[in-house]
Amino acid sequence: MEIFNVAQLRKLGTEIFRAVDVPDDEADLVTKLLVRANLQGHDSHGVIRIPTYCQAIRKGQIRPGAKISIVRETANTALIDGKWGFGQSVATQAMEITIRKAEKNDIGSVALFNCNHVGRLWDYSVMAIEHDMIGIIVASCRRVHVAPFGGREKMLGTNPLCVATPAGKMEPFILDMATSAVAEGKVRVSLHKKEMLSNEWIIDKEGRPSKNPADLYDGGALLPLGGAVGYKGFGLGLAAEILGGTLSGFSFAHTKEFEIGNFLFLEALNISSFTPINEFKGRMDDLIMAMKTSKTAPGYSEILIPGELEFKTERTRLKEGIPIPETTWEQLAKTASELNLEVKKII
Amino acid sequence: MEIFNVAQLRKLGTEIFRAVDVPDDEADLVTKLLVRANLQGHDSHGVIRIPTYCQAIRKGQIRPGAKISIVRETANTALIDGKWGFGQSVATQAMEITIRKAEKNDIGSVALFNCNHVGRLWDYSVMAIEHDMIGIIVASCRRVHVAPFGGREKMLGTNPLCVATPAGKMEPFILDMATSAVAEGKVRVSLHKKEMLSNEWIIDKEGRPSKNPADLYDGGALLPLGGAVGYKGFGLGLAAEILGGTLSGFSFAHTKEFEIGNFLFLEALNISSFTPINEFKGRMDDLIMAMKTSKTAPGYSEILIPGELEFKTERTRLKEGIPIPETTWEQLAKTASELNLEVKKII
Repeated sequence: MEIFNVAQLRKLGTEIFRAVDVPDDEADLVTKLLVRANLQGHDSHGVIRIPTYCQAIRKGQIRPGAKISIVRETANTALIDGKWGFGQSVATQAMEITIRKAEKNDIGSVALFNCNHVGRLWDYSVMAIEHDMIGIIVASCRRVHVAPFGGREKMLGTNPLCVATPAGKMEPFILDMATSAVAEGKVRVSLHKKEMLSNEWIIDKEGRPSKNPADLYDGGALLPLGGAVGYKGFGLGLAAEILGGTLSGFSFAHTKEFEIGNFLFLEALNISSFTPINEFKGRMDDLIMAMKTSKTAPGYSEILIPGELEFKTERTRLKEGIPIPETTWEQLAKTASELNLEVKKII
Repeated sequence: MEIFNVAQLRKLGTEIFRAVDVPDDEADLVTKLLVRANLQGHDSHGVIRIPTYCQAIRKGQIRPGAKISIVRETANTALIDGKWGFGQSVATQAMEITIRKAEKNDIGSVALFNCNHVGRLWDYSVMAIEHDMIGIIVASCRRVHVAPFGGREKMLGTNPLCVATPAGKMEPFILDMATSAVAEGKVRVSLHKKEMLSNEWIIDKEGRPSKNPADLYDGGALLPLGGAVGYKGFGLGLAAEILGGTLSGFSFAHTKEFEIGNFLFLEALNISSFTPINEFKGRMDDLIMAMKTSKTAPGYSEILIPGELEFKTERTRLKEGIPIPETTWEQLAKTASELNLEVKKII
């Protein structure tokens, strides 16, 4: 485990992406968001992705510098073809359009297709917060990992949903969650550590609930959020599939057309169209404080608001640095060296 | 257990409401939606509510015939004061306004406050479907029953969320779910039946997970959806609280101002602003069929799409009648007789 600071990781990522012909601004943006994921504790969505993204560029799956195209547009809505550009760049452009519409006409809603892996929905919803708006984003995700409630085949992606709202003195509320019981990445980590899962979050190939991570990769599937009431998680996953996929023209859940991709539905609500923004922020602070000062249950020292853990981790890692596991670091170094980059010179 | 048909129950409900000075059209509407809940198998939201609503009218909590007032409005948004009218009537009017905005300007978003119990969000989201729109509704609910993840105090309502989309030949997709692990009504039913809950969906007054329904009514609380990942359910409940409450000017979660009420956020998305409606419906059919024809897990004979169980139950009960438990029937008869109505003459 080595420790790096933000500047080091950003320099490394940017140099690697430039070396595979990613335009400068796009290399900066993608790296910034990946390093932010590490900073906030979501290492599965951090610099670990750089080698994979480089491979996807080589395969032609990610097309650096691709310009998005607006297929259909009204004052409040747009259907956007992402042209298989870098997910981070495409989603940022789509959210900028969404916000612009909300600035002029109170709400913006955008359906986005032909978009690669965007990383965390968090990154685009916070753009709404910066404009005193509520950001709502859902995604239809390839690959499929999740079984329907009562089913045993992988039929849906982990289809996340994100709701972000500004607050006043308190940190903003940012809910960014997969609609599956657990993220695929967590199961993979347990597999590598040779540990059992703490709950029956997956099924084996026969459809039987399991705690053995190996079962997922032997024909099994992730379960939807909810356990005994998993029809709720299945419903949320389908809702994300419909808004992100069916509305934009594609649904990953029933087509083999695509191997990869995150198709999104993005929305920005201008808060001041409903209520004075400062009053809203004051009420948000009150709401958050009421939750945080309510009594905790045995075994819990604190009530955490969605987003709070990420902000805490960010403060810690800004001070103490970002730990990068050895395997991740080796893969990064290998990717760099294949591109004739000297890691030691870069950072 | 007696069996009634739709006409009988609607006649009875309408007569009772008229007798407590509810205007004819409002009495019809409220009864229609209550009976629909029974038809679709949600008896906890059906005619069982009639006596409670009559009491709320007597107390002045529900104000029959109250006219809603639009506090603030743009082409796409409205902030509506429900004037504490009948929840069903107020929410119907609010959704009509939402849909009208989406017809003219692609999207409508409405925040609604001072609104009584609306029953099921289902009823207003299906109005969007009838206009080839997607309906999205969330509610901030008094009373509070649900503890934060890691908490032991009742801080949030069961704050439901609803997403409804039309399909083609298939029945529409209608997800209408509480963000708590279980509905309060289900715990009450278990208490009356002297049964334990099948899962640890509640906590006792010390915050310890419990299957004993009595614990909820002895200082306990409902848990948010998600079990070990209950921070997801807590986040969804907070998102509903913010959109339904904080955005409209009130949050039940941190004010003692109100004893009752469902404050809503309603949205209608005009599908044809994004994609041709017939293509969307075709894709919806494909998506639903793909789910339904995928393999089932052991113990499940069928994969159910959100809404499907309700439509099935409706078909059965239209044919076979609606069973009304004895206690419910006694309460209805008592309410009628107090109003000098003769139940036998009415139905």
